[in-house]
Amino acid sequence: MSLLVVGSVAFDSIATPHGKVENVLGGAATYFSVSASWFAPVRVVAVVGEDFGDQEAQVFARRAIDTTGLERAAGKTFHWSGEYTGAMNEARTLETQLNVFEHFAPKVPAPYLESEYLLLGNIHPTLQLHVREQLPQARVVGLDSMNYWIKGAPEELRKVLSRVDILVINETEARMLSGEANLQRAAAAVRKMGPRILVIKRGEYGANLYTEGSVFSAPGYPLEEVKDPTGAGDTFAGGFMGYLAQTGDLSENSLRRAVIYGSVMGSFAVEEFGLGRLLRLDPAQIAARCRDFKNLTYFDA
Amino acid sequence: MSLLVVGSVAFDSIATPHGKVENVLGGAATYFSVSASWFAPVRVVAVVGEDFGDQEAQVFARRAIDTTGLERAAGKTFHWSGEYTGAMNEARTLETQLNVFEHFAPKVPAPYLESEYLLLGNIHPTLQLHVREQLPQARVVGLDSMNYWIKGAPEELRKVLSRVDILVINETEARMLSGEANLQRAAAAVRKMGPRILVIKRGEYGANLYTEGSVFSAPGYPLEEVKDPTGAGDTFAGGFMGYLAQTGDLSENSLRRAVIYGSVMGSFAVEEFGLGRLLRLDPAQIAARCRDFKNLTYFDA
Repeated sequence: MSLLVVGSVAFDSIATPHGKVENVLGGAATYFSVSASWFAPVRVVAVVGEDFGDQEAQVFARRAIDTTGLERAAGKTFHWSGEYTGAMNEARTLETQLNVFEHFAPKVPAPYLESEYLLLGNIHPTLQLHVREQLPQARVVGLDSMNYWIKGAPEELRKVLSRVDILVINETEARMLSGEANLQRAAAAVRKMGPRILVIKRGEYGANLYTEGSVFSAPGYPLEEVKDPTGAGDTFAGGFMGYLAQTGDLSENSLRRAVIYGSVMGSFAVEEFGLGRLLRLDPAQIAARCRDFKNLTYFDA
Repeated sequence: MSLLVVGSVAFDSIATPHGKVENVLGGAATYFSVSASWFAPVRVVAVVGEDFGDQEAQVFARRAIDTTGLERAAGKTFHWSGEYTGAMNEARTLETQLNVFEHFAPKVPAPYLESEYLLLGNIHPTLQLHVREQLPQARVVGLDSMNYWIKGAPEELRKVLSRVDILVINETEARMLSGEANLQRAAAAVRKMGPRILVIKRGEYGANLYTEGSVFSAPGYPLEEVKDPTGAGDTFAGGFMGYLAQTGDLSENSLRRAVIYGSVMGSFAVEEFGLGRLLRLDPAQIAARCRDFKNLTYFDA
């Protein structure tokens, strides 16, 4: 089943203890769609500037990602510049140039309106709601957000939260959104706001899935070298939603598997700078790492 | 098989967002031995002062913990005072009165010298080595330590590390001891120092077990209320070593189960202030929570 994502496409300049890159293709919608494309057909609604050339277009084309919804506007593409130090758990933003993204008004092409799976990427909640309302029949709607909107647009965020099935956020955001320091209480409070399926990303510690009466805990993958954490969360969301769109199965076990596939994809993403590793994957590598995840928590009780 | 622990017995004064208690029985050796006593016979080597009365002695007696090695010295028992705030991940020490613990010189009673399992609790590495050398035939020797000794007595610590089978530390300590920010590299470096079995405690995120060529990741238990984290790490070590002493089995699967039993016991410990919950357990509750841990990470691949 086809999966529509709305969000940002960007150029990133990134420095980590392992090196630096300038103006590489990035953005939440990019990481999400490349990751999800390993599981299901993906469509993108985003905006880029005149500096988005053939080379960048080819990245989407090679992964068979539908870019009919990729608007080309006058000006420059969104640019983010950041660095990671020490244990690299958090990026320090050095510069954000919104450029054409500043006035992004998502336009959903007519053929996309039938998409059954929808991921509302991390943009203003009012824009997320606007897109949500254009796909009233969507079978499964996921949402991403961040502290900036939790603080800056809480009412708008609550409105769109009440209209989605799935929320994927990190633990700091879950605590901020709920006002609860305890993660289980935070999860329960957030689920009451709308999303019956809640995924809380915990960086190197893995991710938790909260559904009705159930908690699933996926471990972090024990990597000996994290080169660049940029996009790991969006890549996770792509694997998670992509797997659900592939199977059309929302059972507890399928949701748990989706969290594992999200974790698998996120663990690959950080092995190289930018999209490098995600573009060089093959299905056997994905399956092998999925087995690694199984072994990582296995014990015979 | 019998399990000997050497470490601290203390009175604790603790404040958390859920309340406060004054002068309750605590200390690493206490939490460790009460926890381990649910699995195997335990012997304690520690020192207490004249304020250690019948009420405290009864705590050990009721759990059938052998206190022949509990020395009674002139003066007051070690007293620790601390508080936890917010997400309660770390204690803030308000006061430490070492009292009789300041000049603790562990004396191992003759009948204890045949102990097959030994846990060297968090005391000066020179004292740990001294005890280690008195039990040359011990089958399995575990060690705990902390940042204070890693910084303050690195050579002595290295010496005792080279003489143990198991090290149980937290992730900050693992990074400090190895000088590696990446946890997997830190684990590999620490294992080269001696302990072939390394358990890295990650607080609410669970624990990792590192053995030759294998990593096991145990999740944190999703508690809706953590009343008092004091002693959780020692309780974990007690469940872990206690299970190994009970089974005498050091296979990979048994070590993994031991990590789960450690996690089970740690998750109970924090549900109430002090030792309260650990003293009111029963084997069925322990088994049930072990199944909870299994379900927490289960997915059908």
